[in-house]
Amino acid sequence: MLEELKERVCTANLALVRHGLVVLTWGNASAIDRDKGLVVIKPSGVSYDTMKPDDMVIVDMDGKVVEGRFRPSSDTPTHIALYKAFPAVGGVVHTHSTCATAWAQAARPIPNLGTTHADVFHTDVPVTDEIADDRIRDAYEEATGDTIVAAFSRLGIAPEETPAALAVHHGPFTWGPTVEKAVENAVTLEAVAEMAERSLALNPDVRMNPAMVEKHYSRKHGPSAYYGQL
Amino acid sequence: MLEELKERVCTANLALVRHGLVVLTWGNASAIDRDKGLVVIKPSGVSYDTMKPDDMVIVDMDGKVVEGRFRPSSDTPTHIALYKAFPAVGGVVHTHSTCATAWAQAARPIPNLGTTHADVFHTDVPVTDEIADDRIRDAYEEATGDTIVAAFSRLGIAPEETPAALAVHHGPFTWGPTVEKAVENAVTLEAVAEMAERSLALNPDVRMNPAMVEKHYSRKHGPSAYYGQL
Amino acid sequence: MLEELKERVCTANLALVRHGLVVLTWGNASAIDRDKGLVVIKPSGVSYDTMKPDDMVIVDMDGKVVEGRFRPSSDTPTHIALYKAFPAVGGVVHTHSTCATAWAQAARPIPNLGTTHADVFHTDVPVTDEIADDRIRDAYEEATGDTIVAAFSRLGIAPEETPAALAVHHGPFTWGPTVEKAVENAVTLEAVAEMAERSLALNPDVRMNPAMVEKHYSRKHGPSAYYGQL
Amino acid sequence: MLEELKERVCTANLALVRHGLVVLTWGNASAIDRDKGLVVIKPSGVSYDTMKPDDMVIVDMDGKVVEGRFRPSSDTPTHIALYKAFPAVGGVVHTHSTCATAWAQAARPIPNLGTTHADVFHTDVPVTDEIADDRIRDAYEEATGDTIVAAFSRLGIAPEETPAALAVHHGPFTWGPTVEKAVENAVTLEAVAEMAERSLALNPDVRMNPAMVEKHYSRKHGPSAYYGQL
Repeated sequence: MLEELKERVCTANLALVRHGLVVLTWGNASAIDRDKGLVVIKPSGVSYDTMKPDDMVIVDMDGKVVEGRFRPSSDTPTHIALYKAFPAVGGVVHTHSTCATAWAQAARPIPNLGTTHADVFHTDVPVTDEIADDRIRDAYEEATGDTIVAAFSRLGIAPEETPAALAVHHGPFTWGPTVEKAVENAVTLEAVAEMAERSLALNPDVRMNPAMVEKHYSRKHGPSAYYGQL
Repeated sequence: MLEELKERVCTANLALVRHGLVVLTWGNASAIDRDKGLVVIKPSGVSYDTMKPDDMVIVDMDGKVVEGRFRPSSDTPTHIALYKAFPAVGGVVHTHSTCATAWAQAARPIPNLGTTHADVFHTDVPVTDEIADDRIRDAYEEATGDTIVAAFSRLGIAPEETPAALAVHHGPFTWGPTVEKAVENAVTLEAVAEMAERSLALNPDVRMNPAMVEKHYSRKHGPSAYYGQL
Repeated sequence: MLEELKERVCTANLALVRHGLVVLTWGNASAIDRDKGLVVIKPSGVSYDTMKPDDMVIVDMDGKVVEGRFRPSSDTPTHIALYKAFPAVGGVVHTHSTCATAWAQAARPIPNLGTTHADVFHTDVPVTDEIADDRIRDAYEEATGDTIVAAFSRLGIAPEETPAALAVHHGPFTWGPTVEKAVENAVTLEAVAEMAERSLALNPDVRMNPAMVEKHYSRKHGPSAYYGQL
Repeated sequence: MLEELKERVCTANLALVRHGLVVLTWGNASAIDRDKGLVVIKPSGVSYDTMKPDDMVIVDMDGKVVEGRFRPSSDTPTHIALYKAFPAVGGVVHTHSTCATAWAQAARPIPNLGTTHADVFHTDVPVTDEIADDRIRDAYEEATGDTIVAAFSRLGIAPEETPAALAVHHGPFTWGPTVEKAVENAVTLEAVAEMAERSLALNPDVRMNPAMVEKHYSRKHGPSAYYGQL
């Protein structure tokens, strides 16, 4: 069942390790089959060294396991909350990559300071509000997804525009039309997180020219994009 | 004698190098056989390039060599002090990993700033008090272990709760029910040490919501844990 | 057509990945055949994993594709602007390497703080002025090249003397008599960018003795050079 | 001639690359045969990729080439100055390793902040005084060595005690009884340079207990050493 998607999700999870975004078991990637309403996700706490497509878990939109001999990632309700709220998203990635996590722990959005950022993320990368204590105790992982959705709503950002968020005190989530693109966005996020930290150490007040933000974002996105192959 | 444990301890020592926590010969891992009252530990100052299980040294609870052609790690008395004081500990690891050592040199505990930390360490990671000058000169390595035990007692932290400490001006020690878990905790400690340093550079006053600390710690530990496989 | 140059340009692009200066597809190297007035450059947004000499694109000095089945790098007009203005340049490299990009984002030139810098770059590495908004919207990539040329003119620096510049909010460009030398200069630039950032964190006011700047630069360049083989 | 020493010096130079201390051609290692009064050193500006023992150059104590088809490292007079002044030294290493170079560029000695440092270097790692302008212009490399020797004399440090120095605005030199030990000391120096920078960022005023400095240094050196194998 969903053999091709399981293979892609497994490959995506291993790519997170290869890109240096995940150590031990701290990360997970998933993809959705919108027609069937099913999500393929990494099993919880399983070593990357021996991970194979058949270890992936299939859950429905309530998080109930439909196929798979392992328990799904404990972050599954966060992934599902994002799939429900963001209908164009095909894949979701969560990591504890060092620099993006540092911004999440610092409870600061990552400012859009350069073209590396603006090529992929149209705005600052938002950080979520604190989760209320009662929701931390009950259905916490779903609440994590809900605060991400709330942040985008509050700030008026479309999820396609800036496919990344920082869960406060926790770490980054990224997404994309495919799980492969969500992985790429996780790579970019970690890079711009490190660059922004270094840039502000050199010049705390620097900001990017808004015209350059628009130029770089539109070079790669929208009707007038001209980056890459046709 | 203790062939299986020697193999596991050798593998654990080599894993420290593979994880980038040890350069040259700066680190050591050990495991205890509680029934026999014997500790298996890395030899002192031997290169990791050629290390094999038979090079491991077996010592008793007084640090006397019971088997092995090499001298044991000079930190052996520290390991033994921890095994004596912390009865549930099965393995101990010491490294000079860069970021954890920087906190030890700075004489500051690593604050619990995020879920990466709280998933494994329930509290700030304690730093030891200064060792008295007379104990530095005599039985120094044992004194290092004693100050770790004293820090946990002074702060009211159970060793299972936060399986790591920073020996002031020196570096990190971690432990766990097994030597493999002690290695994992050393990996986590280095990661959270780097994240915390970067987080405070971005926001010197940030602290984590206590409800999230409890949530993340209890997700992985205690009767209501639900992370990983059953 | 230009088979040897395509091979060298392909190798140069792959070297950027090997040196850790490029992730995903964020970088490009080109070389010029001055006799034919043709530039060989990386295709836009193509993966490095499968890149081969035949994928390189040949363009004329107006940026028009002369050979190649892919679209050329979107930064092609920047490369051409540099080739037009700097007649001794044989190769150009652009990356988003972390530390050099941080200085570009901080809108600060990289100060000449040591011999690693002075061996290759005679002066501080300039950062460009802001591009005017109308030029950002129209022929932006050419404007990027023009601001680099303008910075060298304004500061009275010869392009051979300091073969590198930071495009503000964007990232580094380097060049050299050959594309191989341009790659080497990109490696040096990233190293001195990191060293300078760390040096200023330790001593914000430090500057290098001008006599040492001259000594190191002239050891490797000009009539009295004595570094390397004859 | 000196075939074994050429092999060891070649291996030492390659080890610098393997340990991440050298990029491009920025480094050199040498060894001396005290009986013959000859020094074996890396050739100048030759790529590490193809370097072999036969490429090493043999020079006498005036720096004159005795054997070898290449020119010796341009830093040869610095190495010779150290061999002349420090009679127990058998090997010398020079790198531009990132963090040690940052301290050299910052014109600050590396403070002895922890046991990683004190195990190998008894004191702060000295930084040299500025070289006088006339000596920069004439016999500069010899002057670099002379300022290192002068720093040790001024501070009353024995070269065996702290086998490392920072040439101001330039970078680190290390030495040892053998070239292999000089390489090890270069590895340690880079590690403690990074740790010290991070420690001071976390606690600018921290210093190490002098009793611990003595303990750790004497654990590994002198009549009462007990680290490593007999």
